[in-house]
Amino acid sequence: MKVGIIMGSKSDWPTMEHAANMLDSFGVEYETRVVSAHRTPQLLADYASSAAERGIKVIIAGAGGAAHLPGMAAAFTSLPVLGVPVQSKALKGVDSLLSICQMPKGVAVGTLAIGEAGAANAGLLATQILACQQPELLAKVDEFRQKQTDTVLANPDPAV
Amino acid sequence: MKVGIIMGSKSDWPTMEHAANMLDSFGVEYETRVVSAHRTPQLLADYASSAAERGIKVIIAGAGGAAHLPGMAAAFTSLPVLGVPVQSKALKGVDSLLSICQMPKGVAVGTLAIGEAGAANAGLLATQILACQQPELLAKVDEFRQKQTDTVLANPDPAV
Amino acid sequence: MKVGIIMGSKSDWPTMEHAANMLDSFGVEYETRVVSAHRTPQLLADYASSAAERGIKVIIAGAGGAAHLPGMAAAFTSLPVLGVPVQSKALKGVDSLLSICQMPKGVAVGTLAIGEAGAANAGLLATQILACQQPELLAKVDEFRQKQTDTVLANPDPAV
Amino acid sequence: MKVGIIMGSKSDWPTMEHAANMLDSFGVEYETRVVSAHRTPQLLADYASSAAERGIKVIIAGAGGAAHLPGMAAAFTSLPVLGVPVQSKALKGVDSLLSICQMPKGVAVGTLAIGEAGAANAGLLATQILACQQPELLAKVDEFRQKQTDTVLANPDPAV
Amino acid sequence: MKVGIIMGSKSDWPTMEHAANMLDSFGVEYETRVVSAHRTPQLLADYASSAAERGIKVIIAGAGGAAHLPGMAAAFTSLPVLGVPVQSKALKGVDSLLSICQMPKGVAVGTLAIGEAGAANAGLLATQILACQQPELLAKVDEFRQKQTDTVLANPDPAV
Amino acid sequence: MKVGIIMGSKSDWPTMEHAANMLDSFGVEYETRVVSAHRTPQLLADYASSAAERGIKVIIAGAGGAAHLPGMAAAFTSLPVLGVPVQSKALKGVDSLLSICQMPKGVAVGTLAIGEAGAANAGLLATQILACQQPELLAKVDEFRQKQTDTVLANPDPAV
Amino acid sequence: MKVGIIMGSKSDWPTMEHAANMLDSFGVEYETRVVSAHRTPQLLADYASSAAERGIKVIIAGAGGAAHLPGMAAAFTSLPVLGVPVQSKALKGVDSLLSICQMPKGVAVGTLAIGEAGAANAGLLATQILACQQPELLAKVDEFRQKQTDTVLANPDPAV
Amino acid sequence: MKVGIIMGSKSDWPTMEHAANMLDSFGVEYETRVVSAHRTPQLLADYASSAAERGIKVIIAGAGGAAHLPGMAAAFTSLPVLGVPVQSKALKGVDSLLSICQMPKGVAVGTLAIGEAGAANAGLLATQILACQQPELLAKVDEFRQKQTDTVLANPDPAV
Repeated sequence: MKVGIIMGSKSDWPTMEHAANMLDSFGVEYETRVVSAHRTPQLLADYASSAAERGIKVIIAGAGGAAHLPGMAAAFTSLPVLGVPVQSKALKGVDSLLSICQMPKGVAVGTLAIGEAGAANAGLLATQILACQQPELLAKVDEFRQKQTDTVLANPDPAV
Repeated sequence: MKVGIIMGSKSDWPTMEHAANMLDSFGVEYETRVVSAHRTPQLLADYASSAAERGIKVIIAGAGGAAHLPGMAAAFTSLPVLGVPVQSKALKGVDSLLSICQMPKGVAVGTLAIGEAGAANAGLLATQILACQQPELLAKVDEFRQKQTDTVLANPDPAV
Repeated sequence: MKVGIIMGSKSDWPTMEHAANMLDSFGVEYETRVVSAHRTPQLLADYASSAAERGIKVIIAGAGGAAHLPGMAAAFTSLPVLGVPVQSKALKGVDSLLSICQMPKGVAVGTLAIGEAGAANAGLLATQILACQQPELLAKVDEFRQKQTDTVLANPDPAV
Repeated sequence: MKVGIIMGSKSDWPTMEHAANMLDSFGVEYETRVVSAHRTPQLLADYASSAAERGIKVIIAGAGGAAHLPGMAAAFTSLPVLGVPVQSKALKGVDSLLSICQMPKGVAVGTLAIGEAGAANAGLLATQILACQQPELLAKVDEFRQKQTDTVLANPDPAV
Repeated sequence: MKVGIIMGSKSDWPTMEHAANMLDSFGVEYETRVVSAHRTPQLLADYASSAAERGIKVIIAGAGGAAHLPGMAAAFTSLPVLGVPVQSKALKGVDSLLSICQMPKGVAVGTLAIGEAGAANAGLLATQILACQQPELLAKVDEFRQKQTDTVLANPDPAV
Repeated sequence: MKVGIIMGSKSDWPTMEHAANMLDSFGVEYETRVVSAHRTPQLLADYASSAAERGIKVIIAGAGGAAHLPGMAAAFTSLPVLGVPVQSKALKGVDSLLSICQMPKGVAVGTLAIGEAGAANAGLLATQILACQQPELLAKVDEFRQKQTDTVLANPDPAV
Repeated sequence: MKVGIIMGSKSDWPTMEHAANMLDSFGVEYETRVVSAHRTPQLLADYASSAAERGIKVIIAGAGGAAHLPGMAAAFTSLPVLGVPVQSKALKGVDSLLSICQMPKGVAVGTLAIGEAGAANAGLLATQILACQQPELLAKVDEFRQKQTDTVLANPDPAV
Repeated sequence: MKVGIIMGSKSDWPTMEHAANMLDSFGVEYETRVVSAHRTPQLLADYASSAAERGIKVIIAGAGGAAHLPGMAAAFTSLPVLGVPVQSKALKGVDSLLSICQMPKGVAVGTLAIGEAGAANAGLLATQILACQQPELLAKVDEFRQKQTDTVLANPDPAV
């Protein structure tokens, strides 16, 4: 298990599954779990503080609204934590984004874009982090990026 | 000790002392402590989960930026938690306000205004909550409110 | 009657009934009433200033847009007032949130999140306030919180 | 007395005196008074509901933050009410503006710009309203406007 | 003809007809016209500068987005101008509100709320302005306000 | 005279002189004038509608707050109009930016950044537009851009 | 080929085709191409740096979210670049607008409104720029503007 | 050289040096360089695309305003890129934050908080990423975190 994907609620899954899909596409092992900062704070503490010893290398945490999950996970581990602001109902994820991103000096969260694009990119960035030590992953990322480039180049006409 | 005033950093004190001053003016006992959600998450868990048994009735938590302290305190206790958004440097407390206020269903934080006014009002609201069971406190709040009204009435001319 | 739930318009009921439902779940007595700060200002003054003597312990006020109801209710009583920003049409509740939360020093409103989550949490926080003096309510809140935790723990897989 | 200028606090006077100055420049009689929606709600009710019979034709109300004064004054009178959002410390008057402007259907506030320009324009708009029935005031407004135009025309070079 | 209702585009009519309806309910005569600040600037200049001599007492101008119509109408007349921010597609009327409200010192627009409520209130405020000199209109406004109050009082239960 | 630089007030000059300085650096002739959309609407109409026949090729208009000048200039001419949002006091130019940029279909303003950078870039973009037909100007722009690039390349160390 | 219309993704075409349609209406030749700043950065560099020599006079670039395309195109060419903020899902184009507009001194993008109106106006402004040197285009723009004016004048009644 | 710290301008150094200081505290080798996305786009392309082969493992990019540097660096490399939104003059870094964070699916930037805290945390997160493969670095991060915790615990009184 290399990546732990956690989210505050099952309702975050339609967003966060894009992180899982991205990891799948690279063949990166991961686990997914609902961990609520507010409803299961002790689980959060246990999950994050034991993640390293369980072999997790990167934690991806998605949450909406007050969105304390990524920052609190980061508070309980020295592993890199990536945060995904889930689009909230009233404020469209502005609250999620600021809550996740505006961390104080000393505890860091690498924040991605609001919503599905951010979740997918959390999966991608986690893979890039793992690729630092796994040359075969780096090759896969390069290939993904190249394919993505080729797709745009092969479809130059926006109106088709 | 009736009220626990916690804050994420010493730099929040110039704001949060207004909560302490308000409680002082009502003769309400309180304690103050720096408790950082991100730097001392275990202390936060311990502080909030043991507050009730130590006789605390209301927790006032002030924080700026990502400002997870009030919401996480609320996650570890069934006591009422009041949150004070401390004015942050870049975003002027908009981040603090949204992080504190936009809690999900099931874990509540009563949020006050950004900055000193909010801190003072947290002290006031805590006293109003305690006054539910302490008639002598209710009288003091009524007196405070009346004095405040009288001061405005006695100084009708804005230009003086 | 322990809690008074007021709102500026019938159109706020689909939001505010979540406060009522929460109080129902704890067996807390409450009354509901449409009280418009702008259309029935005298009723608001009468309602809020007489609430304490009628046995009300906490007022929950919901409003959208300019949303003066919670702050004005607080102006007429020494009881704790909780404010629920109802999601407005154009600005999605940002106006409601700022109008309710940004109270000046000396008159406090404990503000909850925008919309249904905030309304439900107003009911929860009101119960937590009442629980200060009613041990059996505290037990119910603890039970609610534990059940909520257990539900998350029992459903760890976000994809199911 | 034709215009009543009220404001929530003495600290609003440096802004609101620009309304008074504008009225002075047109020779329009006015009174000024600190009336706090939150600290003196009964005074507000009395002031606004008796304004018409005291000969007031237009009310100008300035307030910052939650800024309930203009809307609540409008709730207690059928006179035209003009609102001035005073620049607030943290949010720079965005809260004041939304609280004053976003009134529900049925009770109206004519809102001016944030700060001094808005206060001055409240004095101007009040005069324009009075000018509907006072031809000599209309002439003064026309003259003011013409002089203002002439001043720009006479100073075309921005660098001088 | 007492009131001129102008708007930047036919697409503003579903909003602005609420101003017309309000005036109808008071029996106030008005005219409606599409006047585009950007597409018919000369018409705007002609309309606004001739309005007073055609007997218009108040101009209501609605516009969305850049929303220059109210401010430019005010630039060409000494009559009171009321501005209605029409809800825009992307920014939900925040752009309209700021463009209309943030006028510089010397040319005033009384701004109402975004959308239908603001349009209706523009009709109401225009009537209140006219009522300064027409006692029978004042009675009608008082009656409208009383009826509005009575309707709330007669329907106290939000859930019915 | 190739470029007309207009601004709503002398107070905009410290911002707008950066447009003039940029044009100076390219040797592009320009004129500067205070033209207020609200205080001198007829001058604005005259200035913009006669600009083409006076040989002006591009209009640069700077304004703050409601900032109607660029859009209204564009309404009176078929020349390209570039708008510079001047930083406003309360809202820091957000109002200026939205008022200038959010023009309706059919009348366009090319909007630059808020403040000095935007003013300088308005001068640059005006020069780029003129360079379409003046090869010697194109060379100067290329040279400016190259010099700018070289300066960065020659100073790679941020700490020096 | 006079104008190059580029956009970051095919999903931007429903917005950007309004730029193409506007150019069509003036008979201005253009090309359209998907060029992604992030997925095809080298194509962007090649496209922008070779545009002038291929006869392109103006580049119109549309993008949403981080929206780096217009600014990076401007970085690689001395041609005038017009930017269209495409309405993004979560933030409705506020992100796109700020990313495109807030360029630093020395590299300019003329930014249009968010969405379809902005795209159409980019086509119009590009035509106005080309018209500087093509009198027959200027006549067409004048005619377009006149027709637009006439349409408003011919349809004065908003309710029809 | 393990980390490349780049920034758009020398004026970003007072912010970005906090990233350097953090890396220094961990003994992580890094290089710093001014690389402007807009003024030196080719340098950016060269820097980012050659970083991996030069041994760089993580890129930290800081920029303000339109802030294209982090996203464009990410477009040219498969290495992890961390973005620091530098506080901008008018919009206080909101523009920088959105430009950096709102990347489209397929090219990721891990975004930190606005300003100095974000820069310091970029250094910390880069170290955490490197620590995945360097056990001695992990120990240093753990020690840093512990020391940080101890400092808070040793200074519990906010008023001292």
